[in-house]
Amino acid sequence: MEVVILGSGNVATHLAYALKKAEYHVKQVFSRQYEHARQLADGIGAEPVDQLQHITTEADVYIIAVKDESIQEVASSLRLRNKILLHTSGSTDMDVLRPFSTSYGVLYPLQTISKEVELDFSKIPLILEFSDQRTKEMMMNLAFKLSPLIYEYNSEQRRCLHLGAVFACNFSNFLYTISYDFLKGKEVDFSLLKPLIMETAAKIQDHIPKDIQTGPAVRNDQNTIQKHMALLEHYPAWKNIYQVLSNEIVQTYAAKEE
Amino acid sequence: MEVVILGSGNVATHLAYALKKAEYHVKQVFSRQYEHARQLADGIGAEPVDQLQHITTEADVYIIAVKDESIQEVASSLRLRNKILLHTSGSTDMDVLRPFSTSYGVLYPLQTISKEVELDFSKIPLILEFSDQRTKEMMMNLAFKLSPLIYEYNSEQRRCLHLGAVFACNFSNFLYTISYDFLKGKEVDFSLLKPLIMETAAKIQDHIPKDIQTGPAVRNDQNTIQKHMALLEHYPAWKNIYQVLSNEIVQTYAAKEE
Repeated sequence: MEVVILGSGNVATHLAYALKKAEYHVKQVFSRQYEHARQLADGIGAEPVDQLQHITTEADVYIIAVKDESIQEVASSLRLRNKILLHTSGSTDMDVLRPFSTSYGVLYPLQTISKEVELDFSKIPLILEFSDQRTKEMMMNLAFKLSPLIYEYNSEQRRCLHLGAVFACNFSNFLYTISYDFLKGKEVDFSLLKPLIMETAAKIQDHIPKDIQTGPAVRNDQNTIQKHMALLEHYPAWKNIYQVLSNEIVQTYAAKEE
Repeated sequence: MEVVILGSGNVATHLAYALKKAEYHVKQVFSRQYEHARQLADGIGAEPVDQLQHITTEADVYIIAVKDESIQEVASSLRLRNKILLHTSGSTDMDVLRPFSTSYGVLYPLQTISKEVELDFSKIPLILEFSDQRTKEMMMNLAFKLSPLIYEYNSEQRRCLHLGAVFACNFSNFLYTISYDFLKGKEVDFSLLKPLIMETAAKIQDHIPKDIQTGPAVRNDQNTIQKHMALLEHYPAWKNIYQVLSNEIVQTYAAKEE
């Protein structure tokens, strides 16, 4: 099975290397910026392409791993008929690909992917959706060679999962940033919190997060909350976030006790 | 050195067992609810006490591990003169103890402590503050036997650290809860996010959180943000949190790029 990767960003990069490791032949890598295409293509022994009309019609699978808003545009430039066409987006419906091939689907790697951080693709859940049974059968081998963690969800569920990941991961990371920046300004070592952050993530591996909530808001400890708000006096955006989250925690647990 | 523990909650419990493990003699455990005092006291071979006037005046160290708002009240009921008096609160000034002994301080275990979850105290950073050098010298041995991770910070820094922990840990856990509850309602398996949550926490062990932010908001991907807001239409509180955090991420990274 020959593969073409359209895109050179985080997902495209990790996916391309994972395919190479699984001994698939990535024929071409496309990016509008030739240098980006070349850099990734060189790493995996593929041909770099910076013009959509130069993309081969002879490969078996075309994986679009570009920004969500560019998926349709890239798909519409390919002439595939019945070649397999996939995108990798958590929040984009599979059906945006329908006009462009008879055989299409989604391969969404559920991970917070930064180019800089090395990644073991075999530990990443792959969320899959296919236009039809035949496409599914053709893709399952490839999928399992990338990761044993295979899940089939429809587009609505996948979008919900992506939203869940935004709350649990993207937003959590932003809270780490607030904590980091706040403590830096106070000459307190953020590193002290690192074991605590790991412990917080580790705990929910085998507990329901609602059952292990700690902190002043869950105790409705308004005294501490007011002290914290005072510390945030000169940081109105962080103060607002503190207030919104604390209020919601107070209300969630007040409702629970009733 | 003989120790009295005042309190029977999460911190009191883990601290009492850690002291026992370090071969300190915990003489008494106080709780207003006799059953609570008894339960903890039995586990560590101490005497349970449910009336403040029955607390011995003969111990060396009195550790108040009660709710922040009760610290002063408990302290004021003890007659200690020059015995060492400590509290364990992140957000309470050391000086609330000044009227009650000549020798006082704070031993704040920086951890998200739930009674249900087992804890290795030796991996918890202890944030210490003492009224004077003599008290410090007397307490350092005990502190090091509990944990090698010893830090001295003043009350202001400790309060900032506590606030940092609220953002990075308590609020993160609440975001896990939102994600869990939302996905449960959509029949999507929250467990899928568990590796992602671990990875998010693991990444900041050796990266600055601001440098590894991912998700739609950091890309200012309004298309995805609007799709997510639509999914949250029937959950106004979560929608508000989504909006507040996304806006702040957009603004933080817009400012960074300028």
